[in-house]
Amino acid sequence: MRCGAGIDARMVDELAINIDPIQAGGRLTADAMKAVIAYGDGYSVCDNCRTPNRLDYISKPPIAQFHKDLAAWLNMDAARVVPGARRGFQAVAHTYVNKGDPVLLSSLAHYTEFLAIEAAGGVAREIPANAQNIVTADAAAEKIEEVKRGSGRLPVLLFIDHVDYQYGNVHDARGIVKVAHQYDIPVLCNGAYTVGIMPVDGKDLGADFIVGSGHKSMAAPAPSGILAATAERAQEVFRMTAITGDMTGRKFGIKEPEMMGCTLMGVTLMGMMASFPHVKERVKHVDRELERARIVHQALLSIQGTKILSEFPRKHTLTRVDTTGSFDRVAQSHKKRGFFLSGALGEKGVAGIIPGATRVWKFNTYGMTKAQAQYLAQVFVTIAQDNGLAIA
Amino acid sequence: MRCGAGIDARMVDELAINIDPIQAGGRLTADAMKAVIAYGDGYSVCDNCRTPNRLDYISKPPIAQFHKDLAAWLNMDAARVVPGARRGFQAVAHTYVNKGDPVLLSSLAHYTEFLAIEAAGGVAREIPANAQNIVTADAAAEKIEEVKRGSGRLPVLLFIDHVDYQYGNVHDARGIVKVAHQYDIPVLCNGAYTVGIMPVDGKDLGADFIVGSGHKSMAAPAPSGILAATAERAQEVFRMTAITGDMTGRKFGIKEPEMMGCTLMGVTLMGMMASFPHVKERVKHVDRELERARIVHQALLSIQGTKILSEFPRKHTLTRVDTTGSFDRVAQSHKKRGFFLSGALGEKGVAGIIPGATRVWKFNTYGMTKAQAQYLAQVFVTIAQDNGLAIA
Repeated sequence: MRCGAGIDARMVDELAINIDPIQAGGRLTADAMKAVIAYGDGYSVCDNCRTPNRLDYISKPPIAQFHKDLAAWLNMDAARVVPGARRGFQAVAHTYVNKGDPVLLSSLAHYTEFLAIEAAGGVAREIPANAQNIVTADAAAEKIEEVKRGSGRLPVLLFIDHVDYQYGNVHDARGIVKVAHQYDIPVLCNGAYTVGIMPVDGKDLGADFIVGSGHKSMAAPAPSGILAATAERAQEVFRMTAITGDMTGRKFGIKEPEMMGCTLMGVTLMGMMASFPHVKERVKHVDRELERARIVHQALLSIQGTKILSEFPRKHTLTRVDTTGSFDRVAQSHKKRGFFLSGALGEKGVAGIIPGATRVWKFNTYGMTKAQAQYLAQVFVTIAQDNGLAIA
Repeated sequence: MRCGAGIDARMVDELAINIDPIQAGGRLTADAMKAVIAYGDGYSVCDNCRTPNRLDYISKPPIAQFHKDLAAWLNMDAARVVPGARRGFQAVAHTYVNKGDPVLLSSLAHYTEFLAIEAAGGVAREIPANAQNIVTADAAAEKIEEVKRGSGRLPVLLFIDHVDYQYGNVHDARGIVKVAHQYDIPVLCNGAYTVGIMPVDGKDLGADFIVGSGHKSMAAPAPSGILAATAERAQEVFRMTAITGDMTGRKFGIKEPEMMGCTLMGVTLMGMMASFPHVKERVKHVDRELERARIVHQALLSIQGTKILSEFPRKHTLTRVDTTGSFDRVAQSHKKRGFFLSGALGEKGVAGIIPGATRVWKFNTYGMTKAQAQYLAQVFVTIAQDNGLAIA
């Protein structure tokens, strides 16, 4: 099937069990798909934009209410939608970071946090994860002291990934916030893998900012995300425009420079809003998701030589696995080399693994039914057996 | 019809002739709608992302080719997609503008250009439009000299709206670029109302940057837009990341800080790509669009007391009209006050006018059939007659 312009219709999630590590939480709900169809046109949410003209004041569709609900759900004071979590990082970094300022983030931080720091002119300083690939409050405290000793200055901002993209490990965001606040360092908690996947309570974490990703974890189209803030920080990052035209004297009302005015004026926001009731419900059922992930983990661990590099017990369904001692051994002599694994998975209806990867790779079981998890578990074992690997 | 979460299905363009000034060029094509349905899921374009990992290198769907085609079509050297034209302004302003730097834009500039300057710490200086609401090269030259005299410094960047959002007038972008380049000032030509609506030739204009809006003028979902640059300027705005992790030594390849890495990873880009062949074709038929607009203009001008404030002859279908001497006179004594006009239009199947507006308002006939234009013309005249206004 084609969509014109040489574009084939994408049917990955219709035809296969998709274990892509970044796509699992961004699949649309049926309601989001309806909203996408109804609000596909550019500027589709602006029909009833009235004074004051800003996206988060539109009441039909209920965008204003969504913003309130979003902030309340995260137990934060204010929220905005942004074109991806990265645009939330950018807004916060741009507000607090000046040229040469040290900024903390973890050794497992997402690259977009680095880019936000770089764009703002800051200097990235990493808090090292420990041997278990967990970022602790002690490590944060040590790094703050190290930066202070080395540069004579305190970091102006700290990013902590609530769950990181490499291991899917849960880090001590609450403890790190506590430490940072002792030095008056504001903290952005990157919930790209948690907001929409598991409960996130901003006040409990103590974070100044919570960032979430619509297309990664809130069953929304791309690019979309959210930036939530405490009342105090909201005044800083969501400050209103003060610029005027020198000839016309024009002013620009309540528009916010860090948001560049309105942000998601159509399909992306409507998809996120339509999924929101489902997302609020699904975060209550992390246990069910982890139980299904466990079925797959047990199968993988039964294949001799396979290791799971993520923390155990798993608290998130994104998992990093090391098959250097199993599937990669097969790849050494297989006529398809490393492509045998993705090929065999594809033949059995499993998509989402990088073709050729047989050493360290990631997958995500989020959203699977139990039957799908059992099937996937069996597929891994069968591929191992078919290729002469021992099963424990 | 509902999409869940209290969201009614939007049917404005299905049920009415929509003359909203900002929505006309952003209605999806049928191919875009197919692409939106196929690529609604978050991160839907990332299935085949391979090293080097960047959106504009993905070959399936043909995103890499689209970027090349886009640059060629605009006769520029490089192009990127961005979450709205404003994010193009932001990237360029952030690259060239430091705190206190004067930046030129026109007295008819869009507010997002002001916000981009404000966010970068610059000082906005307006080039005044002339009595005909046209921004000329002479006015630009005078303003450059005025800024130079006043501050002892030259502006570091100049924004010119190819067609402005207030009158839909075509400004002398080519002449202004010529003047600015005599002072080595880079120029961003804001084509939010032209790229996708009429032919835009970057080399002919001489602009350093061309910005376009997907949701405003390229039949694409929101938020989407494009930023095209000359080879020289591309190296500056699309510079690659240089930041590293101090503990891990991590580097981030070819990611671009001003783009925050990848930009439109799903439905927005695919909608834009699917519409692109249609958009390329439609820009060749501006005359047809203007002919249809003319039918409506003539009808409006036949209503005694009505003025069209946009330049004549019209070169763009976005038009600013003054009905203070006609429909607003009716409003003075009508029981519905100013709401009689939008109400009467609504009853006759016309949407997109701000409810209550009877003095100065804007509309856009872009994309109408001739029959629709004739119908709309008749509707205006009928409403005028029904309310006792004289028709010339």
